[in-house]
Amino acid sequence: MDYDALKERVCAANKEINRVQLAILTWGNASEVDREAGVFAIKPSGVDYDEMTPDDIPIISLETGEKLEGAMNPSSDTATHWHLYKAFPDIGGIVHTHSPYATAWAQAHRGIPCLGTTHADTFYGAVPCTRPLTQAEIEGEYELNTGKVIEEHFVNNGLKAVELPGVLVSSHAPFTWGADALKAVVNGRVLEEVAKMAATTFALNPNLGSVDQFLLDKHYLRKHGANAYYGQK
Amino acid sequence: MDYDALKERVCAANKEINRVQLAILTWGNASEVDREAGVFAIKPSGVDYDEMTPDDIPIISLETGEKLEGAMNPSSDTATHWHLYKAFPDIGGIVHTHSPYATAWAQAHRGIPCLGTTHADTFYGAVPCTRPLTQAEIEGEYELNTGKVIEEHFVNNGLKAVELPGVLVSSHAPFTWGADALKAVVNGRVLEEVAKMAATTFALNPNLGSVDQFLLDKHYLRKHGANAYYGQK
Amino acid sequence: MDYDALKERVCAANKEINRVQLAILTWGNASEVDREAGVFAIKPSGVDYDEMTPDDIPIISLETGEKLEGAMNPSSDTATHWHLYKAFPDIGGIVHTHSPYATAWAQAHRGIPCLGTTHADTFYGAVPCTRPLTQAEIEGEYELNTGKVIEEHFVNNGLKAVELPGVLVSSHAPFTWGADALKAVVNGRVLEEVAKMAATTFALNPNLGSVDQFLLDKHYLRKHGANAYYGQK
Amino acid sequence: MDYDALKERVCAANKEINRVQLAILTWGNASEVDREAGVFAIKPSGVDYDEMTPDDIPIISLETGEKLEGAMNPSSDTATHWHLYKAFPDIGGIVHTHSPYATAWAQAHRGIPCLGTTHADTFYGAVPCTRPLTQAEIEGEYELNTGKVIEEHFVNNGLKAVELPGVLVSSHAPFTWGADALKAVVNGRVLEEVAKMAATTFALNPNLGSVDQFLLDKHYLRKHGANAYYGQK
Repeated sequence: MDYDALKERVCAANKEINRVQLAILTWGNASEVDREAGVFAIKPSGVDYDEMTPDDIPIISLETGEKLEGAMNPSSDTATHWHLYKAFPDIGGIVHTHSPYATAWAQAHRGIPCLGTTHADTFYGAVPCTRPLTQAEIEGEYELNTGKVIEEHFVNNGLKAVELPGVLVSSHAPFTWGADALKAVVNGRVLEEVAKMAATTFALNPNLGSVDQFLLDKHYLRKHGANAYYGQK
Repeated sequence: MDYDALKERVCAANKEINRVQLAILTWGNASEVDREAGVFAIKPSGVDYDEMTPDDIPIISLETGEKLEGAMNPSSDTATHWHLYKAFPDIGGIVHTHSPYATAWAQAHRGIPCLGTTHADTFYGAVPCTRPLTQAEIEGEYELNTGKVIEEHFVNNGLKAVELPGVLVSSHAPFTWGADALKAVVNGRVLEEVAKMAATTFALNPNLGSVDQFLLDKHYLRKHGANAYYGQK
Repeated sequence: MDYDALKERVCAANKEINRVQLAILTWGNASEVDREAGVFAIKPSGVDYDEMTPDDIPIISLETGEKLEGAMNPSSDTATHWHLYKAFPDIGGIVHTHSPYATAWAQAHRGIPCLGTTHADTFYGAVPCTRPLTQAEIEGEYELNTGKVIEEHFVNNGLKAVELPGVLVSSHAPFTWGADALKAVVNGRVLEEVAKMAATTFALNPNLGSVDQFLLDKHYLRKHGANAYYGQK
Repeated sequence: MDYDALKERVCAANKEINRVQLAILTWGNASEVDREAGVFAIKPSGVDYDEMTPDDIPIISLETGEKLEGAMNPSSDTATHWHLYKAFPDIGGIVHTHSPYATAWAQAHRGIPCLGTTHADTFYGAVPCTRPLTQAEIEGEYELNTGKVIEEHFVNNGLKAVELPGVLVSSHAPFTWGADALKAVVNGRVLEEVAKMAATTFALNPNLGSVDQFLLDKHYLRKHGANAYYGQK
């Protein structure tokens, strides 16, 4: 079995994280799953984006979460990605960053309400913030439990991962996802821009609520619904 | 009839939106009208700025709002541009972006009062924020109604489009205009910079009002009045 | 008489304003005086920084304020520069910009108190904000009166231009100066950075006062006093 | 004795300060110690980063604090670096900048509490802010006393320099350190990013406290503890 194309896409998506300034240093990682092959590829841990090559990208078993291929250690966040691929069967790529505005909302323990069409074009509702992990969750299988807390929030609140392609982990930072790794990076950019705009918006009007559901419907569905009319398709 | 020059100008103006960082991804569109020919040219929907060529630019009838020429779908905001060209017969180009500070004011449902000469040099008074669209307006011909709500605000408040080349659509984002597409981009840059300065200004002094009318007159008219003395003309 | 070297320096200083992002579009101008020759050179009005050449730089009489040489109109702010060269005989270059943070303080009608050593290294005390110009001053010789209001503030408050190389004009924007045009640009950069830091500082601690005089003395004088020991001289 | 390699590393680290935008103009300096040789190398005072070469880097005696080698004056902050190398025997490089967000916290006289994992990955607790220096300390051996006040804070509060590689000097700016000069620059970048995120976080949630100790332990120790599992080692 040959994962060259998958490794190339994941390497490119990780470099894209850095190019679009979602992460300084090594503060972000992207992965992409090949569900037929039962594997996902992910950034190696602590490697500079500029120096990374497709050969450095580890391949992980979707069944066991163990490394199948590659000389380097996978990202320390690998178990979070692994759990999310299992919890959300419709997603194809995942991105984790510490982009500054989204991270500030996560640190403030606040989800980002939908304040306008920029948000509604990508996220069909508020970008949620998880509950804090417990001491036992943190001292146990921390990265795996991070994935579980994200899944718990989506299940308990009846949220659909495909319609809401991002989350803030409390006291930590954002995860976004999409059809593939590059689309997960795009959703990470949208989330950071939305987080920045929302911070400025609340500074100008602290008592603001979410937009009306019919505006949210209009904008989300004109891009993503059955009758979408944005773009060239 | 040959629209090559118009398409080139509109293609260049759309790339300029991206170059000056008024839009990430595909979050902005520029158009320009040729009133003699009865058409306007506009960005194709969802196309990357880097990949766009003049051949991709659709030509729209000013009379019907329908596409006359071009293989690609025009911007999903085409009906807004169309209505504004009809409502404001003195403008030649229109730009729509989601630039972050102007969008934050729109999301906060606040117009931007004139707080200094930077604003007064381009906008002869506060940059207005429209009323929210109703459910019926959003669920009906949404993009056309966006144009109508902008026109309504200008008519009801006795505002002149040429003197006030921009507006914030509530819960949405800014539109700017000018003598041609490139000048509409310039006005989009001014609006974003003014929106940023105004947010910082209110953080430093929350109780501030507008500048005096005589300062507004002086700055606007030294650049735009009959006796203007700015520049080389 | 040949002003080639002066024109080259002023052209370079104006391009520097743009390179270091103190001004977008044409929102800033630099000038430099040759007191022996009795002239100063200044940016032409409304010309793009990228297109400007030394030949475009007008030469103005220090005695009359009239243009002596050059095909282009001088900056519309020429009379302000002219007055400041006469009011402050120790300065050699002047820069005016609408840099966003300094302009926000000017729009908020607040001088910038000295909050730390970054400020104290360049400005020997608060960067002052002038009183608003009166209607008569604005409707009369506006640009000249802008210079007069700056001078008035320095005279009434016993401030020395060389020790305090910048000012905020109320509802307008900053002016900075220095030994030559390039040093005035450097002081414009310092002012913008100090203005940004001070805005963040007050957000974190709204009740803050100025630093102690002995800290201000230490930092200002280690760079500028008779016993300065910063740098290579 | 030949310090060429040390000078090259210190020259590169100083240029890195500028490349990653921790300092404009000449507002930052880096040094690195060679404890076996009993010397440290540091930036020359007031020299532009672009023009600096390894030959310009002065060599200072760790025993006396005096210059041993080099034509140029060392940084005016040399005595602070000297004292810190003696006070903290486990550190190998030091960086001082006036990066804007970290400086704003220093000017606000506030340490930066640990608000999330971005912070915890590098700093094992709040980044402290020193007490203000007294008039006598400022008018005496100011730069040496700056080092002493930092040491005093760490000693009085039982803090370990290796676990907390940075500090804010009240009314002044940050110092960071690390195993060598380049790692001290990296810690300066982390501190600036953390300072920016924390300012935004408090704007969104003013009453926030620090994260739980077990989250801090988890993140700091997974990168730096005996059982660290981040990266490729």
